[in-house]
Amino acid sequence: MSQTIPLSDFTQTQLTELQAGLDREYELIKGNRVALNLSRGKPAADQVALSDSMEDAIAGDYFDSTGTDVRNYGEIRGIADARALGEELMGVPAANIIAGGNSSLFLMHLVTATALTHGLWGDERRWSNSKPVKILAPVPGYDRHFALTQSLGIEMIPVSMGSDGPDMEQARALASADPAIKGIWCVPKYSNPTGCIYSDQVVDEMAVLPDVAAADDFVVLWDNAYAVHDFNFPGRNLKSIFDAAQAAGTADHVVQFASTSKITFAGGGVAFVASSERVLKALEERLSFMMIGPDKVNQLRHARFLGGRLEQHMQAHAALLKPKFDIVEDTLSKQLGDLDVAQWTQPGGGYFVSLDVKPGLAKAIVSMAKEVGLTLTPAGATYPYGQDPDDSNIRIAPTFASLEELQTAMQILTLCVKLASVREQIKTLP
Amino acid sequence: MSQTIPLSDFTQTQLTELQAGLDREYELIKGNRVALNLSRGKPAADQVALSDSMEDAIAGDYFDSTGTDVRNYGEIRGIADARALGEELMGVPAANIIAGGNSSLFLMHLVTATALTHGLWGDERRWSNSKPVKILAPVPGYDRHFALTQSLGIEMIPVSMGSDGPDMEQARALASADPAIKGIWCVPKYSNPTGCIYSDQVVDEMAVLPDVAAADDFVVLWDNAYAVHDFNFPGRNLKSIFDAAQAAGTADHVVQFASTSKITFAGGGVAFVASSERVLKALEERLSFMMIGPDKVNQLRHARFLGGRLEQHMQAHAALLKPKFDIVEDTLSKQLGDLDVAQWTQPGGGYFVSLDVKPGLAKAIVSMAKEVGLTLTPAGATYPYGQDPDDSNIRIAPTFASLEELQTAMQILTLCVKLASVREQIKTLP
Repeated sequence: MSQTIPLSDFTQTQLTELQAGLDREYELIKGNRVALNLSRGKPAADQVALSDSMEDAIAGDYFDSTGTDVRNYGEIRGIADARALGEELMGVPAANIIAGGNSSLFLMHLVTATALTHGLWGDERRWSNSKPVKILAPVPGYDRHFALTQSLGIEMIPVSMGSDGPDMEQARALASADPAIKGIWCVPKYSNPTGCIYSDQVVDEMAVLPDVAAADDFVVLWDNAYAVHDFNFPGRNLKSIFDAAQAAGTADHVVQFASTSKITFAGGGVAFVASSERVLKALEERLSFMMIGPDKVNQLRHARFLGGRLEQHMQAHAALLKPKFDIVEDTLSKQLGDLDVAQWTQPGGGYFVSLDVKPGLAKAIVSMAKEVGLTLTPAGATYPYGQDPDDSNIRIAPTFASLEELQTAMQILTLCVKLASVREQIKTLP
Repeated sequence: MSQTIPLSDFTQTQLTELQAGLDREYELIKGNRVALNLSRGKPAADQVALSDSMEDAIAGDYFDSTGTDVRNYGEIRGIADARALGEELMGVPAANIIAGGNSSLFLMHLVTATALTHGLWGDERRWSNSKPVKILAPVPGYDRHFALTQSLGIEMIPVSMGSDGPDMEQARALASADPAIKGIWCVPKYSNPTGCIYSDQVVDEMAVLPDVAAADDFVVLWDNAYAVHDFNFPGRNLKSIFDAAQAAGTADHVVQFASTSKITFAGGGVAFVASSERVLKALEERLSFMMIGPDKVNQLRHARFLGGRLEQHMQAHAALLKPKFDIVEDTLSKQLGDLDVAQWTQPGGGYFVSLDVKPGLAKAIVSMAKEVGLTLTPAGATYPYGQDPDDSNIRIAPTFASLEELQTAMQILTLCVKLASVREQIKTLP
């Protein structure tokens, strides 16, 4: 099926023949009644099994290295050992970290909701003093960031993503012109879904963005979800925004997040939030109305299991993940490479591949795939309000499927891309 | 030191002599430089140790009884096994329960914050449509309920507590007269701090309160924190408000909470919220913006460890707790019994004893105790805004101290009560 010329150079006869072949293939697959899913950024069963022995980490000793009994109440910022693990994971001093429960999304909700109603700085500044409240959303981006933001009644303004991070010129122009713009969402390493890593320059420019912004309560929301999730080691370096913000004097306006959800157990991990003492204090106060402390037993389990062997553990994940991303790349490149009907990313880590098809075709392709049993992330999900203006972006999440399932799924996906593209091309013929 | 006549019948000479003796005793204790604490409703180390073997409950099998892999994402309402444990604990069908993370306080915050900003019923009703928003707070009550309420900008209206629950006549009069009153806090069994159990009649009247209320979005917040925390078994029965609300047609307006914090590990347990499907749906939607799911590994651990042996486990707690409550009762009754300077409760379970001293003396007594090294819950903490209008209530939390510490602490506390009462009595002399 490999092609040697771009689809746009095909003659009418070639196009018709190709379409007929693809149609037959599509009907065949339809008959097979498969049920495949590439929509979920979930680790596979063999990945979570890498942490099965974490359950032995307590072994009757419920006291952390400082002598705290993790079975009882208290320690709302998390135990010292967990904050030390946070330091290893985030590259931020433990003193600037709160180790929380199982969800970094909860901590993001905490930060944005606190910024809205109570303020992050112990003073009178509240996002809710502004009507409306807006946040910059690099696109394509993470659908749960968008859903959280929308659920709090905050408007999203899209900013274009490039291969080295958001378009900072665009971000600066928007933030400096409108005091209602209060922050920006970032997934700085192996960004969801493009897989790009922010360049040093982007990190530096992001660290000064709060100063450039018209709002005096602008916050960079730095969701470093894939901080150590490389496919090759030593892992790729992301410049420290903590250091850059210290240097720029904007430490009160950068809040970082991370978690072990895709390191140990998805949903059974430990989440972290890092910022200046001033911001942590405001968060601690809000937390104190919601809980007496985090699950410290699970924190101790994690600190003992991962401490000092984080990279080794991530190498084991990489060994399972890399073959899957190779299948994605190989299939895309073999099936679509020469046709010039799509572009896609080749991330060195993380959980996603971002596929851009010809404008106007993403929804159709996702729905064609669905019809033959392949579930993809809904087209548009990577954009605020689910609206991809070009209808061209499709997020591929290859981690949860088995290698075999993934092979079949990618065959189906590329078939649908080709078929939709050929149909479109035929429409343009005179 | 035991007295046979009330203090008010003492002659001037007797009072002066008693005061001199108490003063000497007080100075002696001061010299001893003790550091004791009866302020915290925390289980003691021997109690949390009762659950040490919970760590063995997984034993390599991470699948719940329905085949769900608890190591991966999902199940935002909690796993079936945990909801079944919730049914055992709360006496509410598992289908009406969400099993969450480690904090029931978080679930209470979720319910009140959702009622304020997004509504609990999938319609247009929002507490925030009313300015101000008010909640009934039976007093004395739980300080964290009050802090949470205040932090959300909700006003609290006190309602008197009796020995069988809140004064329902008062509650009805207030709720029916003011549509800004949106709910009532309840700790229905071994209430914090009085230790009372709501009578069947109070439960029935509470279940119809949402109908009586002027507000159409009134919610009974039923924090059943000590549902199974009896000292004697079979445990005392609390009438089911779930059944009563079903019968009264108010199921959408009763939300119940419970947790295993004082069953297994304080801060490392599983929390539950129970209500009608309509309310659970609204909560689930809000939760979905904050997390992908709860820590299901910990839920499975709890379900396996406690399932079917909850009462047996609570009997082991009782064996450790009852001697402590006996010391409190014995010391209060021996030291203060005949003087008629205080009343106190004799709970059959829970974590607290409520001590009422003569009006105007609570703060002085807490501060006298502090001066000789005994920390008590701040006087007033059991009232909204920390304001006890009579300055008479002191909460005793005897669980965390050792038996020996508790003996000394109760000697100090009763000494301070006597000394403050004698000083006050002397002032009244002509």
